[in-house]
Amino acid sequence: MAWDFSTDPEFEKKLDWARAFVREEVEPLDVLFPGCEYLPLDPQRRTIVDPLKQRVRDAGLWAAHLGPELGGQGFGAVALTLLNEILGRTDWGPIVFGTQAPDTGNAEILARFGTREQRERYLDPLLAGEIFSCFSMTEPQGGADPRVFTTRAVRDGEDWVINGRKYWSSNAAVASFFIVVAITDPNVGVHQGASTFLVPRDTPGVVIEASHHLFGAHRHEPGHSLVRYEDVRVPAHAMLGEPGRGFEVAQSRLAGGRLHHAMRAIGVAQRAIDMMAERAKSRFTQGSSLADKQFVQGFIADSYTELMPFRLAVLHAAWLIDTQGWNGARTEIAALKVLTPKVIQSIVLRAIQVHGGIGATEQLPLVDMLMHGLTLGLADGPTEAHKVNLARQLLTRYDADDPMWPTEFLGRRLEVARAKYGDLVDTVPSVPDGPWA
Amino acid sequence: MAWDFSTDPEFEKKLDWARAFVREEVEPLDVLFPGCEYLPLDPQRRTIVDPLKQRVRDAGLWAAHLGPELGGQGFGAVALTLLNEILGRTDWGPIVFGTQAPDTGNAEILARFGTREQRERYLDPLLAGEIFSCFSMTEPQGGADPRVFTTRAVRDGEDWVINGRKYWSSNAAVASFFIVVAITDPNVGVHQGASTFLVPRDTPGVVIEASHHLFGAHRHEPGHSLVRYEDVRVPAHAMLGEPGRGFEVAQSRLAGGRLHHAMRAIGVAQRAIDMMAERAKSRFTQGSSLADKQFVQGFIADSYTELMPFRLAVLHAAWLIDTQGWNGARTEIAALKVLTPKVIQSIVLRAIQVHGGIGATEQLPLVDMLMHGLTLGLADGPTEAHKVNLARQLLTRYDADDPMWPTEFLGRRLEVARAKYGDLVDTVPSVPDGPWA
Amino acid sequence: MAWDFSTDPEFEKKLDWARAFVREEVEPLDVLFPGCEYLPLDPQRRTIVDPLKQRVRDAGLWAAHLGPELGGQGFGAVALTLLNEILGRTDWGPIVFGTQAPDTGNAEILARFGTREQRERYLDPLLAGEIFSCFSMTEPQGGADPRVFTTRAVRDGEDWVINGRKYWSSNAAVASFFIVVAITDPNVGVHQGASTFLVPRDTPGVVIEASHHLFGAHRHEPGHSLVRYEDVRVPAHAMLGEPGRGFEVAQSRLAGGRLHHAMRAIGVAQRAIDMMAERAKSRFTQGSSLADKQFVQGFIADSYTELMPFRLAVLHAAWLIDTQGWNGARTEIAALKVLTPKVIQSIVLRAIQVHGGIGATEQLPLVDMLMHGLTLGLADGPTEAHKVNLARQLLTRYDADDPMWPTEFLGRRLEVARAKYGDLVDTVPSVPDGPWA
Amino acid sequence: MAWDFSTDPEFEKKLDWARAFVREEVEPLDVLFPGCEYLPLDPQRRTIVDPLKQRVRDAGLWAAHLGPELGGQGFGAVALTLLNEILGRTDWGPIVFGTQAPDTGNAEILARFGTREQRERYLDPLLAGEIFSCFSMTEPQGGADPRVFTTRAVRDGEDWVINGRKYWSSNAAVASFFIVVAITDPNVGVHQGASTFLVPRDTPGVVIEASHHLFGAHRHEPGHSLVRYEDVRVPAHAMLGEPGRGFEVAQSRLAGGRLHHAMRAIGVAQRAIDMMAERAKSRFTQGSSLADKQFVQGFIADSYTELMPFRLAVLHAAWLIDTQGWNGARTEIAALKVLTPKVIQSIVLRAIQVHGGIGATEQLPLVDMLMHGLTLGLADGPTEAHKVNLARQLLTRYDADDPMWPTEFLGRRLEVARAKYGDLVDTVPSVPDGPWA
Repeated sequence: MAWDFSTDPEFEKKLDWARAFVREEVEPLDVLFPGCEYLPLDPQRRTIVDPLKQRVRDAGLWAAHLGPELGGQGFGAVALTLLNEILGRTDWGPIVFGTQAPDTGNAEILARFGTREQRERYLDPLLAGEIFSCFSMTEPQGGADPRVFTTRAVRDGEDWVINGRKYWSSNAAVASFFIVVAITDPNVGVHQGASTFLVPRDTPGVVIEASHHLFGAHRHEPGHSLVRYEDVRVPAHAMLGEPGRGFEVAQSRLAGGRLHHAMRAIGVAQRAIDMMAERAKSRFTQGSSLADKQFVQGFIADSYTELMPFRLAVLHAAWLIDTQGWNGARTEIAALKVLTPKVIQSIVLRAIQVHGGIGATEQLPLVDMLMHGLTLGLADGPTEAHKVNLARQLLTRYDADDPMWPTEFLGRRLEVARAKYGDLVDTVPSVPDGPWA
Repeated sequence: MAWDFSTDPEFEKKLDWARAFVREEVEPLDVLFPGCEYLPLDPQRRTIVDPLKQRVRDAGLWAAHLGPELGGQGFGAVALTLLNEILGRTDWGPIVFGTQAPDTGNAEILARFGTREQRERYLDPLLAGEIFSCFSMTEPQGGADPRVFTTRAVRDGEDWVINGRKYWSSNAAVASFFIVVAITDPNVGVHQGASTFLVPRDTPGVVIEASHHLFGAHRHEPGHSLVRYEDVRVPAHAMLGEPGRGFEVAQSRLAGGRLHHAMRAIGVAQRAIDMMAERAKSRFTQGSSLADKQFVQGFIADSYTELMPFRLAVLHAAWLIDTQGWNGARTEIAALKVLTPKVIQSIVLRAIQVHGGIGATEQLPLVDMLMHGLTLGLADGPTEAHKVNLARQLLTRYDADDPMWPTEFLGRRLEVARAKYGDLVDTVPSVPDGPWA
Repeated sequence: MAWDFSTDPEFEKKLDWARAFVREEVEPLDVLFPGCEYLPLDPQRRTIVDPLKQRVRDAGLWAAHLGPELGGQGFGAVALTLLNEILGRTDWGPIVFGTQAPDTGNAEILARFGTREQRERYLDPLLAGEIFSCFSMTEPQGGADPRVFTTRAVRDGEDWVINGRKYWSSNAAVASFFIVVAITDPNVGVHQGASTFLVPRDTPGVVIEASHHLFGAHRHEPGHSLVRYEDVRVPAHAMLGEPGRGFEVAQSRLAGGRLHHAMRAIGVAQRAIDMMAERAKSRFTQGSSLADKQFVQGFIADSYTELMPFRLAVLHAAWLIDTQGWNGARTEIAALKVLTPKVIQSIVLRAIQVHGGIGATEQLPLVDMLMHGLTLGLADGPTEAHKVNLARQLLTRYDADDPMWPTEFLGRRLEVARAKYGDLVDTVPSVPDGPWA
Repeated sequence: MAWDFSTDPEFEKKLDWARAFVREEVEPLDVLFPGCEYLPLDPQRRTIVDPLKQRVRDAGLWAAHLGPELGGQGFGAVALTLLNEILGRTDWGPIVFGTQAPDTGNAEILARFGTREQRERYLDPLLAGEIFSCFSMTEPQGGADPRVFTTRAVRDGEDWVINGRKYWSSNAAVASFFIVVAITDPNVGVHQGASTFLVPRDTPGVVIEASHHLFGAHRHEPGHSLVRYEDVRVPAHAMLGEPGRGFEVAQSRLAGGRLHHAMRAIGVAQRAIDMMAERAKSRFTQGSSLADKQFVQGFIADSYTELMPFRLAVLHAAWLIDTQGWNGARTEIAALKVLTPKVIQSIVLRAIQVHGGIGATEQLPLVDMLMHGLTLGLADGPTEAHKVNLARQLLTRYDADDPMWPTEFLGRRLEVARAKYGDLVDTVPSVPDGPWA
C-alpha cells in the first residue's frame, strides 16, 4: 500500500526544533508585545525579534511556504502543514518564521506578475519580513460578491486612474503597498473585466477612511480598513497579470490563504484542547477533579474526534496540492474553508466552559481564539458561500435521474435484480422461514 | 515527505473490480433476499451466491481480513478499509466477500486459541462461509459493564459447567457455535476472573429464550437473542485462551470489530450522499431543482465535510494497526467508535430529508441505514462509554498544574516572558502607538 | 396581569379522568392491536373499542376538536391541547376519543362545504368514528409544491371528470371517501385554479396503484398510497367550496392538522422523557445508577429544556386561535411545524441512547416514536419549506435600510446620540478613568 | 379556560411608554458612555442620567422588581419580565430603571436581614441608584462548588474577623459595601456552617488584588475582582440572617438573579434577530437580497423558534413565582439557567454570520452580546452544574423499576393488556389482513 501517514525523520527533526523554539522563544512575545505583530519593528522589539528570525533562517525554516524559485526550499504543502500547526499556537510564530498572512499571498502575486523593479522594491523586503502589504479587494456594499464591485481603473494615456472604495483591507494602516482589484472593463462580467494593480502606499489619493477592529482587539493593531482610492494614478506596469484576469490573480492567492489558515487552525484547536486537559486535571469541584466529570470527558472526547480527522483532512489537501497542484485540491480546500471556523469555534467554546468565568476574561487567550474562529467563518467569504460552492462542485459529479422514483427505489432495484437473476429467483421464497420456526 | 494518500495501482485494480462486481452482481441480492444474509443458504440462494463467492476467491479478495497464517493474503488494515468501504454499500457484500461480522472476530479467536480439532470443525467452515457463529458476552442486567456479569463457569472434573443468561447474542438462532464469556474466578475482578469458552450449538442446556429484532427488521432475520445457559457442560479444552483472560480474548476481537464497522460506515454514508445528490439533481420544486436550494446544498456540503475527514481517520487508524499493531491504534479506534454512528446518523437524516416522505418508507434503504447508525452507537458499548474511555486515554498525556491559575494565565505567562527577555522589555512600550496616530 | 398559565379546575377534572382512562384502558390496545387503528373494526375489536368510545362520550370528551355547530362542545384549542397531549402518548387514543388525523380535518371540510346529503352520508359516520377518509392532494412529481400539480378535473355536462395521480394519500386503502384537489382552471395559477372534490371510494376509475409503508410499519396498516384517478366522474355538487378555491379549503385543514400534531407531540416527547427517567433510575452500570451519570443527567436536562418551552408554545398558539382565529396564529403554527419534529427526534434519540441496544428494537416503542418524529418533518411540507415560510412571514415586519452600515453601526448610533445629547457630551470624557486608578 | 397570554392593557401602556423611552432616550447612552454603567456618576453624566431616572420614577416604573414593602409597586414577576425584556436591549436600561444586577439581589438581602441602621446607610442609596454593591462568594480555588470554600469568619469578642480570598467579585472596585459569604462553623457542612456579612468598602483589610475583565471589556469597567479579606473586622450585627444560614441567604438572591438574567436575555436575543432581519432585507449579494437566501431564512426561522418558546418559558416561571413563590419555580428557574446562555449564543452567532466581517468588529454590538451569552453560561455556576441540578430535581419525580425490562417493554405491556382484556383478545387475530388483500 502506498498509504503513509508518517513524517520523514529528517523533517521531523526540524519540527522538533521548531516546537521547542516556538514554545521557549516565540510564545513569550505574545504576552510581551500583544497585537504588535503587524507593527513595523521599533528598535526595542527589533533587538529581540531580529535574532529570532535569524535563528529560523539558520535552521532552514524561513518562509517555508516559498518554492525554490523564490529562494525557498520547496518543502511543499504537507511539510508546511506540519510546520504551520506549530506556528498556529502563537500570534508571533508566523512573523518570526516569515509566513504571515496576507503577505505570503501577496508575495506570490508579486513574484509571478511583478516587474523586476517591483520585485526588487517590494518583494525582497516583504520576503525579508521588513515591510507589510495589503490586499484590497472586498467592497463595502459587496462583501463576498465581486459582481457588485464598482471600483474602477480607467486608462489615461500611459497611466491607470483608480477610483472607488474598498473595505476590510487588512493591515492597510501599516502596508507599504496595496494590491488592488479594480474593474477595467465594465462591459463584461467581473470575472473577465477586473484587473489587479500594485499601488504604493504613498500614492496620492489613497485615503484610509476608517480602520475597524475585531471586538477585543488592541487599539494599536492596524485592523481592517475602509480605503478610498480617489483619482489614484499608477503607471501601466502597475497592472499585475493580464488585463481582465484580476480574479484569477486573486483566486490563486485566496486558495493558498485558505489552506494556510486551516493549517494554523490545527494548532489553535490543539492548544485549546491542551488547556482544557490541563484544567481538567488541575481543578477539583464537587468531590473530584474535572477530569472525572463525564461532561468534561465528553468535551475532550468530542474535541479530539473533531480535530484529529480535521488535521488529516488538511494534510490530505496539502498532499493533493503537492501531487496534483491547486486545481486537484479545489474541492478539499472548499471543504476546509467550511470546516476550519467550525472546528475552532466548537473546541474553543468547550475550553472556555471548562475554565469557567476566567475563560471569558482577557486573562486567558481563549476568547481571542474564539474571535479568530469567528473571523475565519466570515473573512474571504462567509461559510455559507463556501457551502454553496462546495456543494456545486460535488453535484457536478452526479446526473439527474427520474424525478419521481430514485434509482434506489425498491421497485426499480427489483426490476434490475430480476433482469439479472430472474429465473432463479422465481423459485426462491421471498420471505424464508427463520431457522427456529 | 513520507506522507502518501495514494493507493498502490495494483490494488487499485482489485478495488475497481470489486466496485463493479458489487454494483452489478451483489447489490441485486439486497432486494432479492433481504434480511437473509445470515440465514444458512438454501439450495436456491446457493445457486446464486456460491458462484459469486467463487469469483471473489478467484479475484484474490476472499476473506481479505485474514493474515497469511489463516490462509489470507495479508493485505493489512489499510487495504481492508479500501475494500470494506465498497462492501459497506450493500447488505450482502460482506457475506459474498467472506468478511462479515461477527464471524471475522470469532474466527480470529478460534485461530489463535482453538485446538486443531476445534479449528477443523469450526474455523474451516466459518472461513469458508458455510456456517455462522455467535459471540455471547453481554448480560441483560449489565449492558456495557462487565463488572455486573454473573454468568459462571464452574470446574467439574474434566468439564466446565456454565450457568447464566446472555443478552444481545446476535445470530444465536443460526450459529453453529457460541463463544461465551463466563466468570471462572469470582474472587477477583472480572478482568482477571473471566474466561472464554467455545460452546457448540447443540450442547444440552443452550436455550434461546427470545430473539429481539431491530425495529423494522425482517421477521426471518436471526436477530439478537436472550440465551440461557443452563448447566451447559463443555470439556476442558473448550476454554479458549488462558483462564481468567476472557476479557483480553474478547477485547482483541472488539477492537477489530469496531474498526471494521467504521470502514463499512464510510460506504454507508457515501451511499447516502450519492442518493442525496441524485435526488437533488432530479427533483424540481418551487421553480428550481433541489440542487439549487441552499438548504440542500448545505446538507450536501455538511455531509461531505463530515465524511471526507472521517474516511481519512479510518485509513489512518488502519495504517497505525499495520505499522504499530492494535495497541498503537487504541486511541484512534476509540475515537472512531464515537464518530461512526454520528457520521452515519447525521448524513442519513439529511438524505431522508432531501427525499421527502418516500425517504421514511421501506421503499428506500435510508431508514434501514439510520437504524444501522443508531445500532453502532449502542452495540459494543454506547457512545457515552467510549467517550469516557477516549477522554481517559487522552488525559493520561497531561499533568495537573496549579488549580487556580492555569499555565496560560496571563500573569504566569508574563512572569515567564520577563524572566527570559526582561531587561529588554523594560524599555519597550507595552502599548505602542498605531502608525496612523 | 392577565397572564395565566393555569387550567380551569372543572376541565382539569376531565383531564384527570382522561389521563387515568388512557393509561388503564387505552394503552393496552396499542400492544393488543398494533397498527390496527385505521382498520375498520372487526367484531372482536369492536367488542372492546366501542364501549371505550362510549365512555369517552359519557365523559363529554368525544371529538373534543369539534365546535358546537358540529355537535361538539366548543372546548377550544387550548383545552384540546391539554387533552391531546394525553392522547399523544398512545396510538389508539385519538381513535377512542374521536380526534384522529386526517379525519378531523376532512370532517371540517365536509361540515363547512358539504351538501346536506353529503354530510349525512359521510360526515355523520365519520364523526361517529365508523368510517375513515383520505385527503388526496400531494402528487408524485411534486411533493410540497402545488405549482407542479397536473391532476385535472374537467367539466363534462353536469359532471366533473378527474384524471391524474396522487401520492402519499394516507389511509386510501380504508377510506370511504377521498377529498381530492384537482386543477379546474389551468390558465391561472394553481392557487386560483384548483378545486376540491368529494370522491366516494367506489367511484369507477379510483385505483390504488401501490401503498407505501413507513419503515417498520405493520404490513396490515393502510399506509400511504399512490392513487390513480382515471376518468373519475363525479357530479357537480361533488365540488366542495368555490371553484378555484381548492387551496383555501386545503389550507384551512392543514393549519389545524399541524397544530394537532404539535399537541400530540408533547405527549410523545413526554413519554420518551418518562422512559428515559425510569431507565436512569433503574439501571446500574460502572458502579452507580444511570441517573448518577452526567451524560444521562445532561440528556434529561436537555430534553426538559426542549419540551417545556415547546409545550408552552403550543398552548400559546392554541390560545391565539381561540382569541384571534387561525389567521392570528399563522406565524406560531409555522414555527410549531418546524419545531415539532425536531423536539421529538432529539428527545427520542436520547431516550434510545439511555436504553442501550433494547431501545433500538421492536420491544420498545422508541424507534416507532422516532419514525413519527421523522415523518412530521416530511409530511405536509418538509421542515425546510416551513422555515422559508416562517422566515418570510417574520421578514415582512422589517424594512430595508442602508445596505452598507446597519442602524446599529456605531457611527450611525453616535450620530443619533450626539444629535440628542450633543452639547452635554462634548464635556464628558469618552473614556473615564476607573475609580481605582 | 384560565389560560391567558395577554397583558393587562393598563400595564401594556406602561410598556409602550418604556419601549419608546428606552429607544429614544436610553439607547444613546450605550454609545455615549460605553462601559460606564457601573461607574459613579460624574457631574456630566449626572446631568443626563438623573433626569432620565426621574422620568422613570414619574412613570411609576422605578425599581420595578421591588415589592411594596420596599417602596416598590409590587408589579410581580410577570410584569417585571415584560419590562425587563425591553431593558435587556440596552446596557444602560437597568441602571436608568433602577433594576441592575447585582444590586437588585443585594438590596433584597439588606431589606430582609439588615438592621435599620444598615438599611438607612446602604439600602436607601442603593435603591436610589446612588451607590453600587458587591456580592462576594465565589472563591478562586472553588468556582461553583461551595464545599471547597475556605474563607473564614471567626468570632472575636463582639466582632467577627474575616480572612480569605474571593474571586469574581463583580463591581468590587466601585462598591460601597460587600456582602461576603464566610464559613463560621467549619465543623459542619458548608450549607449549615456558612454565614453572610455586610462589609463596608472602607473596612481595613479589604484588598482588591486584581480586577479581571471580560474579553473586550473597556478598561474603565470595574470588572470582576479577586478580593483578599485580611483580618477584616466587622461588628456582630454585620451578620445578615441567621448564623450558618449563609447559603440560604445567598440562594434567595441567586434564584432572582437567574430569572432577571433570563428576562433581559429575551431582549438581547430579540435585538439580535431584529439586526439579522434588517441586514437580510438591506443587503444584496449574488443577485438577490440576503432575505431571499435559504441559509439566512433558516437562521431567522431557527432563531424565532428558539426565542419565542424561551420567552414563554420565562413568563411561565415568573407566573409560578407570582402564584406559588420561589419554591414553586425552582425547576423552571434551573431550566432557564441552562437555556438562557444557549439561546443568546446561538441566535447572536447567527446574527454575526448574517452581518459578515463587520459583525465581528467593535462597530456592532454583536460580539459584546455573544460575550454576555458566554458569561451567563459560566457565572453563578456553569451550565453543566445546572444541568445536573435540573436533572436531579426532575428525577425525584420517578421511581426505579425493573433493571432489565422497562415498564414499556413489549412483554410486560402485553402481560398487563392480557390481564385486562384477555379472553376477548384470544379471539382477535394479532395480525389482521389489510382490507385490500
